[in-house]
Amino acid sequence: MLSPDRPVTSQDIPTAAADVLERVRARAPRVHCITNVVAQNFSANMLLAAGAIPSMTIASDEVVEFVAQADALLVNLGTFDAERRVAANLAIDSMAQQGKPWLLDPVFVNRSEKRTQFALSLLSYRPRAVRLNSTEFTALSGSELDGASLARFGEKHQTVVGLTGETDIVFGDGRLVCIGNGHPLMSKVTAMGCAGSALVGACLAVEKDPWVAVASGILILGVAGQLAGERAAGPGSLATGILDALYELDAATLAERARVI
Amino acid sequence: MLSPDRPVTSQDIPTAAADVLERVRARAPRVHCITNVVAQNFSANMLLAAGAIPSMTIASDEVVEFVAQADALLVNLGTFDAERRVAANLAIDSMAQQGKPWLLDPVFVNRSEKRTQFALSLLSYRPRAVRLNSTEFTALSGSELDGASLARFGEKHQTVVGLTGETDIVFGDGRLVCIGNGHPLMSKVTAMGCAGSALVGACLAVEKDPWVAVASGILILGVAGQLAGERAAGPGSLATGILDALYELDAATLAERARVI
Amino acid sequence: MLSPDRPVTSQDIPTAAADVLERVRARAPRVHCITNVVAQNFSANMLLAAGAIPSMTIASDEVVEFVAQADALLVNLGTFDAERRVAANLAIDSMAQQGKPWLLDPVFVNRSEKRTQFALSLLSYRPRAVRLNSTEFTALSGSELDGASLARFGEKHQTVVGLTGETDIVFGDGRLVCIGNGHPLMSKVTAMGCAGSALVGACLAVEKDPWVAVASGILILGVAGQLAGERAAGPGSLATGILDALYELDAATLAERARVI
Repeated sequence: MLSPDRPVTSQDIPTAAADVLERVRARAPRVHCITNVVAQNFSANMLLAAGAIPSMTIASDEVVEFVAQADALLVNLGTFDAERRVAANLAIDSMAQQGKPWLLDPVFVNRSEKRTQFALSLLSYRPRAVRLNSTEFTALSGSELDGASLARFGEKHQTVVGLTGETDIVFGDGRLVCIGNGHPLMSKVTAMGCAGSALVGACLAVEKDPWVAVASGILILGVAGQLAGERAAGPGSLATGILDALYELDAATLAERARVI
Repeated sequence: MLSPDRPVTSQDIPTAAADVLERVRARAPRVHCITNVVAQNFSANMLLAAGAIPSMTIASDEVVEFVAQADALLVNLGTFDAERRVAANLAIDSMAQQGKPWLLDPVFVNRSEKRTQFALSLLSYRPRAVRLNSTEFTALSGSELDGASLARFGEKHQTVVGLTGETDIVFGDGRLVCIGNGHPLMSKVTAMGCAGSALVGACLAVEKDPWVAVASGILILGVAGQLAGERAAGPGSLATGILDALYELDAATLAERARVI
Repeated sequence: MLSPDRPVTSQDIPTAAADVLERVRARAPRVHCITNVVAQNFSANMLLAAGAIPSMTIASDEVVEFVAQADALLVNLGTFDAERRVAANLAIDSMAQQGKPWLLDPVFVNRSEKRTQFALSLLSYRPRAVRLNSTEFTALSGSELDGASLARFGEKHQTVVGLTGETDIVFGDGRLVCIGNGHPLMSKVTAMGCAGSALVGACLAVEKDPWVAVASGILILGVAGQLAGERAAGPGSLATGILDALYELDAATLAERARVI
């Protein structure tokens, strides 16, 4: 158990992640995802495998009712269209009024100027976290990735940054953790990052400290991916295997496998 | 073989289901699905694994031509949007004129008032069947689920009700069957119920008695899920395994595994 | 190695396909897909398994920026809607100006007159290739499939025709190759043909001779499908297994397995 008497540090993340996963399974939080079409099915399955309950509607006359019953919200910009933009704005407003967490996944923000502008406009609504890769970070922050730019970005937008890559980095409120889990095959499965963001959403729903929640979600995905990757014959069996591994993941395996600094 | 001389009862369902599945494989009926984005791929694969032919367009200027060539129609309300609503109305009209069967899957009707209203408006177009869970039933019927409310609902809308849950219940025209197949992992795969509704659509296409058709589809899905669940390591392998199990399901296994009262 | 001194013939296709696949893996071409909702996830996974990089947006205010960074474009007409039509026209224009290859997959063109008209209008923008089945060919060309109608169609539209079926036929510029690979289970997985077209797009991105590119893509898919089919228990495991098989496919296996005339 973590002690409430001292701040959580990076060494605590494996224990904290096991605790967060247990709470996801016990509470079955509802996570509403406004995400791209390619990622919807896999993200829903990722949430179900973790013990959470997904919803996915983007219809503007329904989304507010759905979000009112959700415990966390993910806004992902892949295959972005007019309907999703409207839904995102409505949903974020509603979460803000309810004081519930939401996170932003600015997919491919580096590929289109319009996406960058839209992502920046959403940042002003204070997502609890932003999950992205280094190319997307550069496009969004306007600076090369280094410790200073990461700190500046997190400070400016008052958000936790979950930066995924060969080593994942989670930065927030002066705390930093590096996670060396995962498997090369994960990059050969479409929407793996998007589904990971949905999983982070489930963690935000049950854990108030967003740095702990983001680090937990990324570590859980990384360990599940590593276990699946060791058994997989290729990206097809990795995609199904990671759902199996996530479903059966336990605290002992998390502790044993976590590569956290 | 079933005898035409006496009415089909619940004990006949395993034999009837084997017969219906054989007809699906022999006739390869076309099932048009106006269904949610999350469920489209899995539903199409479910239909193909059963021997049916899926089509999925929701474009309003095409849907009537597609439906004219279809043998059954599924209208599923998940991720419902304006385009799907228009397509649903056009498609249902066309099926009614052709005297062909359609069924309604009012997904998440309990989560949004607009969905409830839309689902009720569709019920007036007499679906051959409605497949839903108990929460959705309560939202749609306005009463708690019990034998009387089930009978009232079926009577009022002149439809067969396929109620899925731990035990599935199929009620129609005074006949009732309870099906105890399935596997807990099925609830951990997104769109399992939606894909099951597509399968029921294939059964309606080849079987005139809608109570037999709905019970057959639900039993076939339950047995396939049970076989897959026994071999699965988790929800990922369940999702692929249920398609394999459905593809190779035979009459002997159906008869042996069916838990029907 | 192929010699640059003589024209490539059908016997060269297995060697050429191995070479094309190696270039896809080495260069990781970007393939933008304007494709149907059912096929998006599987097509993206097919491209990733082959070593290419997918993008999928259909938003009209983004697609030109995405296509500017793409090496090939696929336009697939399944679940076609107004937004996709606009995006397709914008994307094709942009590819033409850049002199980059695009291909057309006129899915279900036989089912709707509007699709036929739209497909014909796209043909005037000179796709490098058209991938379709015999029913779609008949609807699009207005004639029964035979050698003469195939030659006439290719000539008229100055395009390579990749005709898939029990035996695949690739015709272009007077050259013909018949490919006898593949597995019956492939027809039981939704979007298999659509994903195959995405793979052909990756081949067009790295191989200037479109006849060689199309034949390579179709052969690679057929051999991967055959390998997966031999190991699969049904269509579910075929769908994951074909991604694994494609990921690990090597030149020796391609040469050994290819059934090319």
